[in-house]
Amino acid sequence: MFTMTPIGFVRSPYSDTTQVPKGVGARHEAEGTLEIAPEFEAGLKDIEGFSHLFVIWCFDRSEGYELEGVPPTDDRPHGVFSTRSPRRPNPIGLSVVEVLGREGRNVRVRGLDMLDGTPILDIKPYMSSVPPEKLRLGWFGEAEARRAAEAKSK
Amino acid sequence: MFTMTPIGFVRSPYSDTTQVPKGVGARHEAEGTLEIAPEFEAGLKDIEGFSHLFVIWCFDRSEGYELEGVPPTDDRPHGVFSTRSPRRPNPIGLSVVEVLGREGRNVRVRGLDMLDGTPILDIKPYMSSVPPEKLRLGWFGEAEARRAAEAKSK
Repeated sequence: MFTMTPIGFVRSPYSDTTQVPKGVGARHEAEGTLEIAPEFEAGLKDIEGFSHLFVIWCFDRSEGYELEGVPPTDDRPHGVFSTRSPRRPNPIGLSVVEVLGREGRNVRVRGLDMLDGTPILDIKPYMSSVPPEKLRLGWFGEAEARRAAEAKSK
Repeated sequence: MFTMTPIGFVRSPYSDTTQVPKGVGARHEAEGTLEIAPEFEAGLKDIEGFSHLFVIWCFDRSEGYELEGVPPTDDRPHGVFSTRSPRRPNPIGLSVVEVLGREGRNVRVRGLDMLDGTPILDIKPYMSSVPPEKLRLGWFGEAEARRAAEAKSK
């Protein structure tokens, strides 16, 4: 067992999960702040040189887990490790955010999908992307294609 | 404080950190297995449809943390949150791996940079990439450019 302590908290416009855009083609444009605790501020040095960051955080308002579930983007069940469900064995969230700037221990970012007050466990630089031609999106890609076909036939 | 329990372990060709490729342009081509515990196998359903996965894991052989340090890829100190240093306030690692296949609770992958026996905390589908033209790599990009210039002038 491993024990984790928050390094800071997310300041986001979302106070409830129903406000967070979900589903195929959901765009995360919300702006907010990663407020890092004073004792960890030195760890932010040079972070503003990166365009994007990984934020690893805790689903602190999620309880228990479900190994299979139907995500909001599909009508079929999938394994929890092939979804972004909050009900995971370890309630860890992962988001990619765009850096807008930094003032001391506050990092302003765009692309938040976390609730206000979410505990942050770690921040890492986003170093490289998978080339689009190599990316396959499994059930998510299929659900997306199915919905596009349905929309077209209407 | 949050308590995390491994969902499985990495089987990798690396038994020592000195064996893991590091530095500018390091390529992670190592193949191995994500061995998930039997009680979580159902959570892997449909994972093989994705080309790439995020693996969130624990630096279980790292002790303590350092808020600023000189990474192997540069000669200047940077904040821990703008590096991939193992000596982090929460010793969480994040890797992107390519899926080769799945046999039951074993997911074969390429691109490992973890040691053999590393505890896995979570797996998530890799859903989207930041477009290359939007990516800025901060100190890492500068160190890369500096080394390229040095190599050229030799």
